[in-house]
Amino acid sequence: MYSSMPKVLHPIAGEPMLAHVIRTARALDPARLVVVYGHGGEQVRARIADADIQWVEQSEQLGTGHALKMALPALPQDGTTLVLYGDVPLTRLETLQTLLSAAGEGMAVLTDIVDNPSGYGRIVRDAAGNAVAIVEEKDCDDTQRQIQEINTGILALPNAQLADWLNSLKNDNAQGEYYLTDVLGLAHRAGVRVGSAVVPHSFEAAGVNNKVQLAELERIYQQNRALALMQAGVTLLDPTRIDVRGELVCGRDVSIDVNCIFEGQVELGDNVTVGAHCVLKNVKVAAGTQIAPFSLLEDSTVGEACKIGPYARLRPGAALAGHVHIGNFVEVKKSTIGEGSKVNHLTYVGDASIGSRVNVGAGCVTVNYNGVDKFRTVIEDNVFVGSGTLMVAPVTLEAGSTVGAGSVVTKNAPAGELTVARARQVTIPGWKRPQKPSRS
Amino acid sequence: MYSSMPKVLHPIAGEPMLAHVIRTARALDPARLVVVYGHGGEQVRARIADADIQWVEQSEQLGTGHALKMALPALPQDGTTLVLYGDVPLTRLETLQTLLSAAGEGMAVLTDIVDNPSGYGRIVRDAAGNAVAIVEEKDCDDTQRQIQEINTGILALPNAQLADWLNSLKNDNAQGEYYLTDVLGLAHRAGVRVGSAVVPHSFEAAGVNNKVQLAELERIYQQNRALALMQAGVTLLDPTRIDVRGELVCGRDVSIDVNCIFEGQVELGDNVTVGAHCVLKNVKVAAGTQIAPFSLLEDSTVGEACKIGPYARLRPGAALAGHVHIGNFVEVKKSTIGEGSKVNHLTYVGDASIGSRVNVGAGCVTVNYNGVDKFRTVIEDNVFVGSGTLMVAPVTLEAGSTVGAGSVVTKNAPAGELTVARARQVTIPGWKRPQKPSRS
Amino acid sequence: MYSSMPKVLHPIAGEPMLAHVIRTARALDPARLVVVYGHGGEQVRARIADADIQWVEQSEQLGTGHALKMALPALPQDGTTLVLYGDVPLTRLETLQTLLSAAGEGMAVLTDIVDNPSGYGRIVRDAAGNAVAIVEEKDCDDTQRQIQEINTGILALPNAQLADWLNSLKNDNAQGEYYLTDVLGLAHRAGVRVGSAVVPHSFEAAGVNNKVQLAELERIYQQNRALALMQAGVTLLDPTRIDVRGELVCGRDVSIDVNCIFEGQVELGDNVTVGAHCVLKNVKVAAGTQIAPFSLLEDSTVGEACKIGPYARLRPGAALAGHVHIGNFVEVKKSTIGEGSKVNHLTYVGDASIGSRVNVGAGCVTVNYNGVDKFRTVIEDNVFVGSGTLMVAPVTLEAGSTVGAGSVVTKNAPAGELTVARARQVTIPGWKRPQKPSRS
Repeated sequence: MYSSMPKVLHPIAGEPMLAHVIRTARALDPARLVVVYGHGGEQVRARIADADIQWVEQSEQLGTGHALKMALPALPQDGTTLVLYGDVPLTRLETLQTLLSAAGEGMAVLTDIVDNPSGYGRIVRDAAGNAVAIVEEKDCDDTQRQIQEINTGILALPNAQLADWLNSLKNDNAQGEYYLTDVLGLAHRAGVRVGSAVVPHSFEAAGVNNKVQLAELERIYQQNRALALMQAGVTLLDPTRIDVRGELVCGRDVSIDVNCIFEGQVELGDNVTVGAHCVLKNVKVAAGTQIAPFSLLEDSTVGEACKIGPYARLRPGAALAGHVHIGNFVEVKKSTIGEGSKVNHLTYVGDASIGSRVNVGAGCVTVNYNGVDKFRTVIEDNVFVGSGTLMVAPVTLEAGSTVGAGSVVTKNAPAGELTVARARQVTIPGWKRPQKPSRS
Repeated sequence: MYSSMPKVLHPIAGEPMLAHVIRTARALDPARLVVVYGHGGEQVRARIADADIQWVEQSEQLGTGHALKMALPALPQDGTTLVLYGDVPLTRLETLQTLLSAAGEGMAVLTDIVDNPSGYGRIVRDAAGNAVAIVEEKDCDDTQRQIQEINTGILALPNAQLADWLNSLKNDNAQGEYYLTDVLGLAHRAGVRVGSAVVPHSFEAAGVNNKVQLAELERIYQQNRALALMQAGVTLLDPTRIDVRGELVCGRDVSIDVNCIFEGQVELGDNVTVGAHCVLKNVKVAAGTQIAPFSLLEDSTVGEACKIGPYARLRPGAALAGHVHIGNFVEVKKSTIGEGSKVNHLTYVGDASIGSRVNVGAGCVTVNYNGVDKFRTVIEDNVFVGSGTLMVAPVTLEAGSTVGAGSVVTKNAPAGELTVARARQVTIPGWKRPQKPSRS
Repeated sequence: MYSSMPKVLHPIAGEPMLAHVIRTARALDPARLVVVYGHGGEQVRARIADADIQWVEQSEQLGTGHALKMALPALPQDGTTLVLYGDVPLTRLETLQTLLSAAGEGMAVLTDIVDNPSGYGRIVRDAAGNAVAIVEEKDCDDTQRQIQEINTGILALPNAQLADWLNSLKNDNAQGEYYLTDVLGLAHRAGVRVGSAVVPHSFEAAGVNNKVQLAELERIYQQNRALALMQAGVTLLDPTRIDVRGELVCGRDVSIDVNCIFEGQVELGDNVTVGAHCVLKNVKVAAGTQIAPFSLLEDSTVGEACKIGPYARLRPGAALAGHVHIGNFVEVKKSTIGEGSKVNHLTYVGDASIGSRVNVGAGCVTVNYNGVDKFRTVIEDNVFVGSGTLMVAPVTLEAGSTVGAGSVVTKNAPAGELTVARARQVTIPGWKRPQKPSRS
């Protein structure tokens, strides 16, 4: 990976590969979740901080069989152990359920059927069709080499026999490693039936060893998300140009234009439209709101029938009521904005409480920071803030007040009155504007 | 579709599927255009408001044969009826012309040849190669099941026989519906020759039943548009990342960077370059203009050799002469801007008439709104508007006037003079800036 | 190409096709670089201004053999001439090295093996496998027509025999042209061994005759660039949505989100993250810096651990030290910004020298232009510039000074003091805001 980050922390859809595996495993409602870690384990434990995980260190890298052996003390005496891999992130829950059913009280192996099995361990079956061995490429005879069913490495194993089998593994191979795949032969020889299940899609068994494979799985993941959204009724203008990195919950008749990105927990109500090139992260948007292109919303809530953007930025803590308009080149941070209020142009609203039916003109700033502390601006209902107004917090524009354009408001503006802070306009007689030299 | 909108109104390239079908049909110069509607008809009629369409309601959904029967009173006694479908939007004009030629005075069926015909009605031909029947999947014998030529549902039918045929249709099938496809057999038995034409591309016969199919056709449509643009000489940096939703007319040597969207009627003159991530809607751009990334132009005209953007927004009613510069974070609305004028930074120009060779500094606002009415700002030729100037409309900056930075202009600025409205700068002795507490 | 620009100047990855060919040729360290030009040659020579190129005009378009004949006076008497084409831009260096090895002291032809050779000249080989002739489609017998190995046109030719061969070429064909491909037969008949090499990828032999082919090669080029970046360890969120038009050098653990464009010479240090929809041109970004979506950086340098964007624009001459924050809707031009300084909102910084630990509030402007000349603003260390401040250059805010919000600073602000230029706030008694007429 050419990275200082452990491989299993590299993200798919913004989340470490290992977290995908753990989430899928947890959905099986397991008695225990054990993660064996080696290189970079502290980074992994710091990033995946789930309390229900039992962490097992494999201090020497002696193969998959050895890794599982390290976990033995953490495993119960009965039941089934499902072996997954932190760099195989896209195995589906349904596939694992099928594998576990195939295992029953015994063991089962997850396999894939591929056009070119070269390099993979082949699944050798007996005349009855039962899997009896996994034969590695180098050990294959000519017949075995033709086998297109390969081992994915994912196994369901009976805990009752597991210790015996793991202790029987040998490392008499070129790498001097203990291969977990050898347990299949052990099971067969022990008379334990070996079940199997074939992955419905090859991506479910695909591992990541480099950035090319990481990008491939990222794209497969995103295609699957896009497909699921469309199947749920969402209109996607281009399913190959949407990225969902978290949860995206949509109401009816939601339409999403090209190149949008959704991160964290995003909810879009009925009839919400998201324009092209938008980024939404941890946002809840109520029904009927239209988000115009180039908007960026983060950790915010947006009420119904709002008009947001283009080029609108909602930063964490923006909370908009219904029918609010946030226009171009407007930034809103840690502020509430009441029903029907409008902030349409080139304005910074930070640490403000804005009431209903307020109009904030173009080029306004809530001056919330003195270099040390942040202060709040309060704009009550029905206030009209003229363009180019600076509101020096803490300050209140009382209900129904009007502030003349270009004012620096440092004291409260009284309710219902016009307040201005503006210099007198004068014309300077005889002043000459600098002239560009003539090009002679 | 999981939608409250009737299926045929779902858009391809921003336009209802039905509108695509009607536009193609109209290009055949038909004597009559009849649309049979059922569920959600009022929404359809409201959205497709073309005066030349005759609307026929099919109150019961009794099959395609029944739908056409409802339309009989609206059809002439002779000539040919072409049967199209509101959810099959991408049939090409040339293909329908071929079908009509194949029909002559008789009937013809549009077919497709597919790898996997499973589920489709097969076209059964006699030894002479004439189509004699359409056999549905369930009624196919083993030989018929192998037929790869399928019925698209699109038919050309002779009006002289149409009433007879439709009245002969039976609904003795599982669904209890009258199938229009049965007319092919009726025609054959009546000795009417049945012509046929094969669609050159499968997308021409593709119908939409869900959002996945809608997205597929959207992408095919866009690929076709991109191909046509390139064949006409337009340079597209990535043909898979352009969306055209309407008409896009380009001069010579036009170059369009990735991820641009064109909506409505857009014209780009010779040598226009459109940067990445731009959205243009109903815009006319004259030769030589360069549009930088992240720009959004709507219902505007742009003269020749202008420089627009990045991050420029032209809202409806912006009309720029030649050699105008509109820079970053600038919004222009309902305003004319004269030859060679520049508005380069962080400014809102609304309801303004700006002359030639005007320079508007950074952070200016035309204050056009008092909460009730909008007023116009006039900036005559050769005016220099200092940065941070607020022009409180109605107001005129007369020709050649200069406005000092930071002025709030409420009265006209006299021609050729310097006008300022600015407070005196003072230094407050002894003031102490708040300090961050030391971290001890 | 439907263009007023000569074909070989049309760009792949922002650079003329011919420049790609010349760069690859130059990497072979040739004794001479000769370009034969015809139509539009002056435009070509003006655009490709490399001093080491010898230009040869082919005033009549009499075929490839004639073109090379025109170049004979510019070629040495011995050694090898490698014949490339200005509209075949993506041949790889390694492939040409293989071809030259195959030529040795003789000649060699670069071939391709294709599924459908129709229309191409076939490579005819003798029983020993030596290429003996190139036979054009129309001259092929039935056996030759089956040959799937085709001529790419790229040849390595021995200068010693070249003049003889070129003078022996005949133009007794339909087009009346001299075909360079005929030299293969001449070489064979002269007993010169003809070597060959097959292109590893068809794109290496692909020529461009229209905008569709130009776009195809652009995409192949970009795929290759993306692949190489990932193989070098860069995380690309979508390899099909990145455009590199120049050099992109990345440190470790660099992550690039979707739809970014890199132009010119770009360097990204370790752990740099580039958000979605960014454009970087001739930029050097130090380690640990995060660039948020919708940012546009050009001809700038960015120090380590900076936070840039979203919606930040760095124009030419922006030089940021470490830990600088440039926020949304901020434009920086020809300015230095010192360690840890912040310009976070809606501000224009142009022609300024900003020190360390400076905070510039929202909505500020360095007023640098009087319509004729540009002047510099100096903001020394630890200055706090209140929101809405206009700094009328030339002006200095001295170290540790504070400027009150809304000030127009025309004179230097003394060190350590608070300076303001602001009008007094008054409330106008009895003023009535205009009311919207009631809707009765």
